[in-house]
Amino acid sequence: MPKYSIPKGFRDFPPEVMILRKKVLSIVEETFKKYGYDPIETPALEHWETLKGKYGEEAENKLLYRFKDPWSNRWYALRYDLTVPLARFLSHHAIPLPFRRYHISRVWRHENPQRGRYREFWQCDVDIVGSPYPEADAEIVNVLSEAIENIGLKNFKIKLNDRRILAGIFEETLSLKNAILAYRVIDKLDRIGFEGVRKELSKTGYPNKVVEKIIETISISGSPEKVLDEIEEMYGKNERVNEGIVHLKEMLDFLKYKDKTSIELSLVRGLDYYTGPIFEYVVEKPKIGSIAGGGRYDNLIEIYTGKHIPSTGGSIGVERVIDAGLELGIFKLSEKTYAKVYVLSLKHDKKTYLYALSVASMLRENGIPTHVDVMRRSEQAQRRYALKKGINIIVYVGPKEVSENKVTIYDRMRNLRKVVALEYMIDTIKEFLKNKDTT
Amino acid sequence: MPKYSIPKGFRDFPPEVMILRKKVLSIVEETFKKYGYDPIETPALEHWETLKGKYGEEAENKLLYRFKDPWSNRWYALRYDLTVPLARFLSHHAIPLPFRRYHISRVWRHENPQRGRYREFWQCDVDIVGSPYPEADAEIVNVLSEAIENIGLKNFKIKLNDRRILAGIFEETLSLKNAILAYRVIDKLDRIGFEGVRKELSKTGYPNKVVEKIIETISISGSPEKVLDEIEEMYGKNERVNEGIVHLKEMLDFLKYKDKTSIELSLVRGLDYYTGPIFEYVVEKPKIGSIAGGGRYDNLIEIYTGKHIPSTGGSIGVERVIDAGLELGIFKLSEKTYAKVYVLSLKHDKKTYLYALSVASMLRENGIPTHVDVMRRSEQAQRRYALKKGINIIVYVGPKEVSENKVTIYDRMRNLRKVVALEYMIDTIKEFLKNKDTT
Repeated sequence: MPKYSIPKGFRDFPPEVMILRKKVLSIVEETFKKYGYDPIETPALEHWETLKGKYGEEAENKLLYRFKDPWSNRWYALRYDLTVPLARFLSHHAIPLPFRRYHISRVWRHENPQRGRYREFWQCDVDIVGSPYPEADAEIVNVLSEAIENIGLKNFKIKLNDRRILAGIFEETLSLKNAILAYRVIDKLDRIGFEGVRKELSKTGYPNKVVEKIIETISISGSPEKVLDEIEEMYGKNERVNEGIVHLKEMLDFLKYKDKTSIELSLVRGLDYYTGPIFEYVVEKPKIGSIAGGGRYDNLIEIYTGKHIPSTGGSIGVERVIDAGLELGIFKLSEKTYAKVYVLSLKHDKKTYLYALSVASMLRENGIPTHVDVMRRSEQAQRRYALKKGINIIVYVGPKEVSENKVTIYDRMRNLRKVVALEYMIDTIKEFLKNKDTT
Repeated sequence: MPKYSIPKGFRDFPPEVMILRKKVLSIVEETFKKYGYDPIETPALEHWETLKGKYGEEAENKLLYRFKDPWSNRWYALRYDLTVPLARFLSHHAIPLPFRRYHISRVWRHENPQRGRYREFWQCDVDIVGSPYPEADAEIVNVLSEAIENIGLKNFKIKLNDRRILAGIFEETLSLKNAILAYRVIDKLDRIGFEGVRKELSKTGYPNKVVEKIIETISISGSPEKVLDEIEEMYGKNERVNEGIVHLKEMLDFLKYKDKTSIELSLVRGLDYYTGPIFEYVVEKPKIGSIAGGGRYDNLIEIYTGKHIPSTGGSIGVERVIDAGLELGIFKLSEKTYAKVYVLSLKHDKKTYLYALSVASMLRENGIPTHVDVMRRSEQAQRRYALKKGINIIVYVGPKEVSENKVTIYDRMRNLRKVVALEYMIDTIKEFLKNKDTT
């Protein structure tokens, strides 16, 4: 055991993990940019009062990292998501609406660490600030879908619902007083199943008849048209339900991945601030929970800006996506370094090393990431190092090479050795690298 | 004043700032990668005992964000730099040495906020873990120099010194008991000048003769060869001074930017963990302090790993580099969005909007970042929005375009309007974009 431990639920990312993460995040970012989303960043810390009362009871009492600044005696908290910071941000910056922004950064939640759940994790958020229309919700779902598909997770499904449909049915038609308690139980459906939900609802104190009605309602799911018709028939007279239905129908017109989309009345989502459509992305395999999600939050930004600014957005969970991709074999943790070439100095005098440095410089100037010895090691030790790192091309530099202005290039994968004049080095290595890509 | 303020010394980055920052950071990262450095990431939080005693008294008592986890009752701290986290990281991961790593991420210090100094800021670190040799120090200085030059800050200078030279002169030849106190005063030279240093040293309690000797020593500066000869003559008999001289001489053989390098005995650097060469990058204009710096720390990693692992590294301060570049006119905050094209929907019926979406999709598939209306605004309002955002190409889509399978393309910069069949849209727009780049 190392003497200095890493805080529980926190993680280091060594190079092979970071190289994969950067690849995945750059695909996500490129997708966001193509849709016209622009980056922002906000502080890791916010004043406690900025985050207070936005995420629900559990978040506030258990999950938020909250602490007192010993100098100012003010309470700070580490940010819990990227949506509330966006809302606070908007009260400080005048930006033309609609504002499409992306924000890829870390957040902190004092969760019980488990598979796919950490205390520090990264979110990839996209939001459209300013539009009340279903086409904005559709665009958010489209850009997230495309990002997930571009990453390589083709077998995702989209669950869709609307908070107004839930509110209309539960709070109005069923007259539940504390619908939020029911939502919290329903939110566990994936983990505890219908029987579990039934039991917990009874324990919460709902009468049997109501419990059965809830179970019946959250069992409604399936292809959008079918389900919306069904809901319309059952609850369409309720105004809020109807608003939700109309909004979802228009939204569905503009969805690119409609065949992957189902409406599920059991989808409630945890956060308090949603007001309209809500959605979640799941993969069948592995069983890892949702990999992305989001929804409309028309009233959140007003708290900060004093202006009614309807908004919608969603977020991809980096850790879940990467864990899923690794398990499905879409990603591999095989690349340990960006370096492609190792310049091996056969002698450690000044003259040879200066030649090795000039060789390395040439390679770098040609865009080829290159290592050069800094350990004054033997030839064998340097070769062993290159092997461990997974660097397959070695450029040997010794007194002979120096005096003849040449290099000896060795391609480990094809066990090929070639002595070339310095001026042909780049072309030869580029050819070696190209061939390797095709094997 | 917004109702919810941003914590003092912390900053939001709106899109125009982020777009610039990302550009600068990607240049830095590309340079690091070319030299064979690989990325790691570590948690924002470390256990307090991990950071304790590593940075000196001021950091520990005033600058470290430290707080108690209310759940575990353990003390945490936000990381203060990226070097101590690297050392802790190495006690958890077996990585072949030398380990060249880069780490671009944020750190927190409870500084008094002022120009170029914030409580949350970003560092770009490169380190070589495992090599005791001057060629490793030289490589660090070279990769940092190249990154700074690639960013566009060509007029930097490198100040170089060695902790052993300082220790040899101050602690051994001058027999200062609390040399660290003198270092702290000397560290302020840039701000308070020689007279200020003289006064503060006297106040600290050093006898006049010693103060004059200190002033004389820290006045030594100039081209490396000249200064090293001078020091050798004055203090060369001291073993530590001599070690420093030999190390610096070898290092200088491998420096790419020797003409920009001077040795300055007044360079001490604040952090406690340095043991060998130390260096700082400054620009003459604007007066913004150092933009990068670093040094050798041969004993730090052993504290965490139990193994003697000599290491060297350095860091570029993102905020200083960006502030300097902005002031020098090398950078501009002109780009407000990545979007290049705005698809303007002239009617807000389903048919027209679906056509607009398919047009936007085509553009995106061809790598052109594209906005499409989600506000159901009038033509004029949409044009005003595109103008505000700085999007110069508008693609008009109305009933006429839909029925004829065409688009109307407008290039604001050249006041050019062109109606083209959908199949020629991409080529036309690519041409428009190309021409704009050259104006």
